[in-house]
Amino acid sequence: MTSGKQAAGVLEGTPSAILETVVYCEDLAAARQFYEQVVGLQLVSDEPDRHLFFRVGKSMLLVFNPNQTRTATVKVGGQMIPRHGGDGASHFAFQSKREQFEAIGQRLADHAVAIEAQIEWPGGGHSIYCRDPAGNSVEFATRTLWFHEE
Amino acid sequence: MTSGKQAAGVLEGTPSAILETVVYCEDLAAARQFYEQVVGLQLVSDEPDRHLFFRVGKSMLLVFNPNQTRTATVKVGGQMIPRHGGDGASHFAFQSKREQFEAIGQRLADHAVAIEAQIEWPGGGHSIYCRDPAGNSVEFATRTLWFHEE
Repeated sequence: MTSGKQAAGVLEGTPSAILETVVYCEDLAAARQFYEQVVGLQLVSDEPDRHLFFRVGKSMLLVFNPNQTRTATVKVGGQMIPRHGGDGASHFAFQSKREQFEAIGQRLADHAVAIEAQIEWPGGGHSIYCRDPAGNSVEFATRTLWFHEE
Repeated sequence: MTSGKQAAGVLEGTPSAILETVVYCEDLAAARQFYEQVVGLQLVSDEPDRHLFFRVGKSMLLVFNPNQTRTATVKVGGQMIPRHGGDGASHFAFQSKREQFEAIGQRLADHAVAIEAQIEWPGGGHSIYCRDPAGNSVEFATRTLWFHEE
């Protein structure tokens, strides 16, 4: 290690946040309907059959068709964007405030999206889980699941 | 829709952030070495053969062994935590400041982790890409890739 350390044992260059979270859906039309109309996210980019990019506060949710990103060659400035693409049900969690859960539950019901589980965590925090159209496990959780501050 | 709207066309209950980003690695020892020693993240929970949970600023990176989370029955307060578990190379991006890239590149080199691509995005922003031990595409990117403000 030549790069030294920052205060409090944090390695220099340690990331301060996660900027992009990815989920894979082959049917992007169904994914768009879910993430835009049910979750309420703001679509910022839409490339037919390849991706949908949504803003979520200060970060991004990228929805990719894995059949494209696994195999396609996309170059930017002569560099190939690394290929990726997962199969199967993955998982991520949105951050929601406790007072938002009623509206979220109502919107899931309005769109006939089943709530798969609702959990009160023993250490604090509340989560509700549903599935996106590709079967990914989508959680809405309070910050208190992980952090003391709201 | 019965739940009405907030200002500026945002649906009520729309999540304000992503709280958990997930990546799957069967070899959790190798994943721990990578995310702790190479990326520099703070481990906050470690369940042998099931998961590693890391704090990244105000959110969490959850590393799961998909062979466990696909099949295991885990109940909290009588509710089963929904099963999930992906295969194949997925992708996510850490947020890094431009002045941190030298230290990140040095640490990757110190641990013999290859840089797969470095991209200057035409619209602004800089990214470097490597692979975690499971082959997931890990990106370090500046906020300016997506947002005007730093």
